[in-house]
Parts: sequence; structure tokens; C-alpha cells
Amino acid sequence: MKVLVTGAAGFLGSHLAERLLNEGCQVVGVDNLYTGTRENISSFASNPNFKFLEADVCDLKADDFDKVEEVYNLACPASPVHYQARPHFTTMTGIKGVMLCLEIAKRDNAKMLHASTSEIYGDPLVHPQKESYWGNVNTIGIRSCYDEGKRIGETLIADYIREFDVDARMTRIFNTYGTRMHPQDGRVVSNFIMQALNDQDITIYGDGSQTRSFQYYSDLIEAFVRFMRLPKEKVRAFFGLPDRPPVPVLNTGNPGEYTIKELAEKTLEKLPNSTSKIVYRPLPGDDPKKRKPDIELAKKLLNWEPTVSLDEGLSKTIEYFKSI
Amino acid sequence: MKVLVTGAAGFLGSHLAERLLNEGCQVVGVDNLYTGTRENISSFASNPNFKFLEADVCDLKADDFDKVEEVYNLACPASPVHYQARPHFTTMTGIKGVMLCLEIAKRDNAKMLHASTSEIYGDPLVHPQKESYWGNVNTIGIRSCYDEGKRIGETLIADYIREFDVDARMTRIFNTYGTRMHPQDGRVVSNFIMQALNDQDITIYGDGSQTRSFQYYSDLIEAFVRFMRLPKEKVRAFFGLPDRPPVPVLNTGNPGEYTIKELAEKTLEKLPNSTSKIVYRPLPGDDPKKRKPDIELAKKLLNWEPTVSLDEGLSKTIEYFKSI
Repeated sequence: MKVLVTGAAGFLGSHLAERLLNEGCQVVGVDNLYTGTRENISSFASNPNFKFLEADVCDLKADDFDKVEEVYNLACPASPVHYQARPHFTTMTGIKGVMLCLEIAKRDNAKMLHASTSEIYGDPLVHPQKESYWGNVNTIGIRSCYDEGKRIGETLIADYIREFDVDARMTRIFNTYGTRMHPQDGRVVSNFIMQALNDQDITIYGDGSQTRSFQYYSDLIEAFVRFMRLPKEKVRAFFGLPDRPPVPVLNTGNPGEYTIKELAEKTLEKLPNSTSKIVYRPLPGDDPKKRKPDIELAKKLLNWEPTVSLDEGLSKTIEYFKSI
Repeated sequence: MKVLVTGAAGFLGSHLAERLLNEGCQVVGVDNLYTGTRENISSFASNPNFKFLEADVCDLKADDFDKVEEVYNLACPASPVHYQARPHFTTMTGIKGVMLCLEIAKRDNAKMLHASTSEIYGDPLVHPQKESYWGNVNTIGIRSCYDEGKRIGETLIADYIREFDVDARMTRIFNTYGTRMHPQDGRVVSNFIMQALNDQDITIYGDGSQTRSFQYYSDLIEAFVRFMRLPKEKVRAFFGLPDRPPVPVLNTGNPGEYTIKELAEKTLEKLPNSTSKIVYRPLPGDDPKKRKPDIELAKKLLNWEPTVSLDEGLSKTIEYFKSI
């Protein structure tokens, strides 16, 4: 099985590529190394079934690739620190990464799985979020390059499903953490661990009462692969019913809900030698107050749910950050 | 003054181009004639200050154009009948039209005015809609190619303002009607007039209680020109305050609110010889139930408000449809 993975040197892309290689797939990985790293792929870079292309999805065309059977689109900076540094680049990565993969999937009659995001729900007005929720996103705010870039990605995919019958599936990924996260990722799990390890203040933006759900990466990768492997007919028959999305899209996240303050305290508990103290800073613009996935559809279609607890995942992630 | 107008053979683009030519501007008009027509530009096609380029904005680059001082981006099919026939083309027109104009505006240090839309509010949960409202749009529904194409257009413009200091402004246009509308436009004003003129049933989708506001085109063109002519400094100083959008965007519409049933009845009143009767059909997917602009910001910044009543505008539009 030949598989293309964009964003293959990133946090999630590298875990996915490794999983696919372990299953005997031939994997072509693309990454511009903007947030991905060679360290992330070092454990499998010499695998003869792996081919790495250091390139930007914005500069590539379908013709640059041989025929594949599966396309996973994971290319995009995902942390506000990284994506807000280059808003136009982020928006275009959202657009062009999807278009590249759609063109390849259309040409090769391949399956495509796109990494969309819970950010398309923005600051949600319903809780938890089902796939049928339309979201609450500012088109012109400082987060819009990422959020709207991901929203238009879903639209482009829905267009291609309707017009060209492309076999594409999307997952809306909720906060995910784990080994190979960028230490300067800037998101809350890596921030707290790095601060605690370095005996720096643990910074909570706002009063810490905002909630998030935290999914360990291995649960997500399992959902990716299960969703991709389902036959087109089964996927198509599942969607388009009343109260289900018209095209294949599934929330993938851990529905366990924690306040940011709880996460900070849990991190400090696991690092009892840290001298860090919790401090509070003003909340940045358009920060969502609550986010929690409704994963009933994924449970039903994929027979899947997260199995790694926050305690277990946090311990593993702390060990990883200690090691690098 | 050299001005580029995309969508120049369309309903609004042709009126804008004519207005600019009447003021002595040199106008380059671009249109792929997908919904625009040569008839729309026939009254000024031979004006030596007008240059028409029959081309698709998706195929053009900034290099295809000489230096201009103002860029108006009006290219995009805007009626559901037209845009849903070619969803991917519609989404890409939204993206590529904006990118073309942004690149020209950046290169020439030109002003840009982009025709965004009230559709970015989707099926709004607040009423009337202020510019600070984020909208309620389905990313993967049958309207998303237009709605999300316009949303990402706003995002791309906000990116270019933040990163490259491009002098761009946006108007969110609410329902607009008038002469040069496409007779098969498929939207409610032209539908009702054409049906009444042809003694066909007047079709109301849903129960007719959904409301819309109707702006006569000349009011909108006036807002376009006033907004474009303001100096950059004045525009920038006006936005970014609390409760105002962070970048220049104004609602432009007529706040008068009518139910669809009232519009049908008004149309029949003006055509007393018509034998048409009102019939009701099921509402299509994702149709907004209410839409009404809050135009306080445009009033304040442009010293503008609509002056043409629905009665007056409807009469003029009926005369136009009779004439063609």
C-alpha cells in the first residue's frame, strides 16, 4: 500500500508515518520543516519504505507524486505561536495543502483523510460540540488564518466530494498532546511541562476556568487509521442522514474535560521537585472558553474511543520532554 | 485615476464601472461572462477610457495588469442557482479573485475594496447583524462554496493588512437588486418579477415569513465609492476600537425589513394585470431565516445611508425586466 502523508515530520504526522511503516506501507512523507523536525522522523528515516521530501505543500503539484492509494493531509502549523507569526502562509497552507491532496486523490482514485480541527467550531456556543454544529469563528481576527484556513479546507473537500465523487474523509481534531510535540509549541500542555521542568512560572491566560479536553496522540492515530481503512460505501452510507453531517466528518478527541487550572495543578503534582508557581496573565483575543468533543459518531462508525487517560499521557509526555 | 474592476460585466460591476467612467476614471474591467453579460456593459463598452478583458480571475496574475490606483473586487457568482452549479469554481473564485487583487494592491500600493457579503453571517443568531458578529455558517453545506469562499476572502485580506499593510477595505453586501440583474438570477426579487411578468406561479420557499432587506443597487455603488475614496489613515483610525472590527469592514445594505410574502404581494400589486398566484415550496438547505444589516458604522464613517425605497426600486426593476 502506497501512502502519502503531508506534514510527515510534525508531531502527529511523524507518529502516523511510523505507524503506517510498521504495518508495511510504503510512505512518502512531505514536510517543509517549519514546525516539523528531522528528529521526529529519525527513528524511521532510514526505513527503505520511507521516502522523505523536504518541500512546502504550497509549492507542489499532483504531478510531483507517483500514484498512491491513500493520502493523509496533516500539513499546517497548528499552534497559535507558529501560525500567527505567518498568517498568510498559514491560510495558504490550509488552502493549498488540501487542494494538492484532493487533486492527487482525484487523479489516483485514492482515499483521502484530512486533519481538520475543533478550531472550526471557534468559541462554540453549544457544548459539547457535535459535528452538526456550525461554529462561531471570527473571519478577521488573529486566529482566523488558522481557523478559516481549516474551514475552507472542509469546504473544498465537500466541493470535491459533491462534484468529483472524491473519496475524502475529515476528522476534526480536538486538543492533542504527547511525545514529539514541539517544546516551543506554545500550547498549554507543552507550555506547562516546559515551565515546570525549568522551574519557571506556570502561566495561565485568563482565570484558568476555561476548559479543554486533552487527547493523547496514539488514540488519534488509531482513529485516523480506522477511518481511512473503512470502505467508501460504508462511509458514505453513514453520513448524510438527518442530524449527521452531509459529508464524512468525525470529531476525534477525548471528551474528558479539565479546566486549565486543573491541568496546571496536575502537571505540578507529577513534577514534585519543581519550584514553579502558577501565575495569571490576560486572555488573548478570541480564545475559546470551552471546547469538548461529542464523539458519538466516531464511536459508532469506527468502534473507537480514547483509551489513554490524562494522567498516563501526561506522565509519558513529561518523560519525553525530560529526554530532549 | 486608473481603476481595476473585477466582475465588471456583472450586475453590480457594470454599474460601478459606468459610474467610475462617468467620473473620468480609466477603467480596466475583467469578467469571465459566467454570469456577467456583454449587454450589461454595452452602454459604455466603446468609451475610450474603458478596457475590457474577458478572462477568469482564477487564471490571471498581477503581472497581467499595468499599475492601478484602485482595485474593486466584485468577481464571483452570487446567486445560489449559479454558484451551486459549480461549487469548486465558486470557492476558487472567492479565493483567487481576492488573491489577485491583493497582489496588485500590494505591488501598486493601491487601494482595494472587496465585495464581501452578508452571507458570511450565514443563518445569523443575532438580529440585526453588526460587523462584530461572527456568523453561523455550515462549512460543508450546499451554500458553503459561496459563504466560506467569501469568509476566507475576508481572512486573506485581514492577513494582508496585518502582514503587508495593504490598504484594503471590505463591504458586506446585503441583498441588492435592480437593473442589470440576471433574469435567471434565481434570487427572490428577479424570480418574483419574472414569474409575475410571465403569469407563472410566484414560488415562495418555506412559509414566506423569513425576512430579508432589499437594497437598490445605486445606494450600494454610492457606498462603494465613498468607502474607497476615504484616505487610508482615516479608515484605519476608525476601526480596531472596542466593538468595532479589527480591520476595515462595513455592512452595506438597506435596513428596511420585509417578509418574503410581503415582497411577493408588493410585486403583484405593481403588476395588476398579472394572473400569477402565490404558491409555497419546501425551503432548501441552510436557507437563512432572517437577515438585516446594522449600518451604524457605515452611516458614521461614510455619512451614507440608502435613499431608494423598495417601492421605487421595485418599480424601476420591473421596468427593466419588461424592457429585456
